[in-house]
Amino acid sequence: MAFVYKHGEFCCGDLPLTTIAEACGTPTFVYDFDAIRRQVQALQQSLSELSPLIAFAVKSNANLTLLRFLANLGCGFDIVSGGEFYRVLQAGGEANRVVFPGVGKRRDEIRDAVDQGVLMLAVESGEELAAVAEVAKQLKKKAAISLRINPEIDAKTHPYLATSLRESKFGVAHTEGLQLFKQAADSPHLEVVGMSVHIGTQVFTEQPFVELCNFCKDYHERLKANGVVLRYLDIGGGLGIAHKAEDETVTPQRYGEIISQYLGELDLQLIIEPGRSVVGNAGVLLSSVLYRKQNFDKRFVVLDASMGELIRPSLYGAYHEILPLKEKRAALSPADWVGPICESADFLAKARPSPEVAQGEQVALLSAGAYGFVMASNYCGRPRPAEVAVMDGKWYLIRKRESYEDLIRGEEIVDLPIN
Amino acid sequence: MAFVYKHGEFCCGDLPLTTIAEACGTPTFVYDFDAIRRQVQALQQSLSELSPLIAFAVKSNANLTLLRFLANLGCGFDIVSGGEFYRVLQAGGEANRVVFPGVGKRRDEIRDAVDQGVLMLAVESGEELAAVAEVAKQLKKKAAISLRINPEIDAKTHPYLATSLRESKFGVAHTEGLQLFKQAADSPHLEVVGMSVHIGTQVFTEQPFVELCNFCKDYHERLKANGVVLRYLDIGGGLGIAHKAEDETVTPQRYGEIISQYLGELDLQLIIEPGRSVVGNAGVLLSSVLYRKQNFDKRFVVLDASMGELIRPSLYGAYHEILPLKEKRAALSPADWVGPICESADFLAKARPSPEVAQGEQVALLSAGAYGFVMASNYCGRPRPAEVAVMDGKWYLIRKRESYEDLIRGEEIVDLPIN
Repeated sequence: MAFVYKHGEFCCGDLPLTTIAEACGTPTFVYDFDAIRRQVQALQQSLSELSPLIAFAVKSNANLTLLRFLANLGCGFDIVSGGEFYRVLQAGGEANRVVFPGVGKRRDEIRDAVDQGVLMLAVESGEELAAVAEVAKQLKKKAAISLRINPEIDAKTHPYLATSLRESKFGVAHTEGLQLFKQAADSPHLEVVGMSVHIGTQVFTEQPFVELCNFCKDYHERLKANGVVLRYLDIGGGLGIAHKAEDETVTPQRYGEIISQYLGELDLQLIIEPGRSVVGNAGVLLSSVLYRKQNFDKRFVVLDASMGELIRPSLYGAYHEILPLKEKRAALSPADWVGPICESADFLAKARPSPEVAQGEQVALLSAGAYGFVMASNYCGRPRPAEVAVMDGKWYLIRKRESYEDLIRGEEIVDLPIN
Repeated sequence: MAFVYKHGEFCCGDLPLTTIAEACGTPTFVYDFDAIRRQVQALQQSLSELSPLIAFAVKSNANLTLLRFLANLGCGFDIVSGGEFYRVLQAGGEANRVVFPGVGKRRDEIRDAVDQGVLMLAVESGEELAAVAEVAKQLKKKAAISLRINPEIDAKTHPYLATSLRESKFGVAHTEGLQLFKQAADSPHLEVVGMSVHIGTQVFTEQPFVELCNFCKDYHERLKANGVVLRYLDIGGGLGIAHKAEDETVTPQRYGEIISQYLGELDLQLIIEPGRSVVGNAGVLLSSVLYRKQNFDKRFVVLDASMGELIRPSLYGAYHEILPLKEKRAALSPADWVGPICESADFLAKARPSPEVAQGEQVALLSAGAYGFVMASNYCGRPRPAEVAVMDGKWYLIRKRESYEDLIRGEEIVDLPIN
């Protein structure tokens, strides 16, 4: 874990998080850049035989300072929209280290990606293939593409996080893929350079990865036998992270071993798309206790953080550990941790064994580095929180807290008659 | 319904929605202000005997032009945060027609509300009561408050939309309320002016409203008998809206009859907090078909709208009708309507009987006027959509589509060393 108690203070490295909570207020996201570097380097080392392109999944955390840092560490990027491509370029990332999957690419997004020369667009349907060819023709360029194949593997994760079930919207059914590969190879406007797969996220066991590797090997053989020669194999992401101490995960080391063992002999440049496994546990959301209350026989702690900042508990039933910034040894009793938003979906934890906390006391919600800020909204008129980077005991404000003025930006009041 | 086909064109009043889709692009939210006015006036008429303050629930749709329009129609506002209060004041709403519930009011939010003189803060816990008294003392003012009581009524709605179950975070348990009312009445810094209740939202049957009225009458009697004299009774919102033609709802007329019948004799100024029932069916989300695809035996329509603009299907399992802007008579077959966001939670409809649609074809997602734009995020690097008002056959851009630049506002790139 990137965050630990030291001398009774919950710290990021050696920096007590109370320092940041006092200086920046709450709620605030804090990311441990030392931990992020360690995670990237663990992946790089475990896969050093294959030296894959590590294409960070920007959708998990798109902060510009993070993207700049990852680019400097040698990462490429997995983007899913023109907006994410814009972010990568703003951060100094290089287009030719960018892969672009996504079932719904607009023409303008395709145009920018082809024009700037991304490493490959991962095409997810026959109609998208035609759209990319048409755009490339207009640009008088050849578009580098892969096909994203749905391998029909059950990753045993939350239904919202699985992406290669038979009923998933993603990719091209493996039964149709060969035909589409051939069609793509015949287009004068396309250069078929890769194959992409992705089984989902928060995968906790080895088996789905093994299945995926076997699938890729077989499929690659079939493609070769049919004259389709590739340069890249993008196996996506999926590595789960522990939300509780007892969660068992596949370590980056073990992941590297599996991938190397099964895919080591392939004459293909490997691409992986980690997101959550790099930043998930390297981030926390700081919050303060507004009120304690008892409704009938139920205990509530009302925080100043909400589903507006962290929607994972209500959307996915996700578990986020909650720890006070000042360590305490106290008896635990069940409490619902909720936010100020006026609906019952707004909870951060339910029936969680919890110590007594004081009004004003500060806490950290753990595992908030991925799919936290990126999913934040202004629901219920709440400005989005600040983001802070910590490195080597120092902290840096990398995104300002929004103001009330930010809420209404772009709106213009039109006085419409009432009769 | 506010939106209907006329001469084969799906229209808002007499205006074909294709006009707006072409001019503003998609996705775009469109609100029918004529329909909104009709809904408000229907409520005003059905409750004319009691002439309640209609405090529009800003959380359902916070657009400034809408708030201005509603203020001109005589509405007050139900706010749940300082950000929503800011919006109301920017729109020209008056503080003394504002009620402010919410389980998690921060001190600065309480201060602004007391200082500007809102009609009442609906206090939801003993600790909040103390906080309000303390702030009022600092301001040397008396804070007008109500207590929000949890009446323990099952509104028979989605668990995320129910607010007065025994296990809800909202309000003060009815068993504790009297004690707290007395305590509040004793404070020199508080003026106890009202009682607030709210049973949830998307309530489709009369019974919960009848139960609520009976509860309020009884409770009010008990308060009077204990020397607590009130001016206001805020019965919240909850009126459901039809998402499908066959949905049976409680009409504003019937709602007015029930309320008048049960609460007519009370010597209290009534306050109601409608949101969804005013704007829900007066709004649509326009979208375009990007791609059609078949995965194994399953049919998908990929839209340029997503859970980023309309999260209700994935968060609440909500049903939103989807209709093509050009009317068609065609055979229906099941399809999943999905968006470009890279997770399986990103769907707008599942296994929905649907006609064939063409690439580029424009559609409307119905019932998107409430809890649509307000819950939108930038997830997956997607700029938030435009908002358009329609009145009397003319349309007005009331919020511009966000740009890529908007996505990174407030971020500053800090160059952190990689070793």
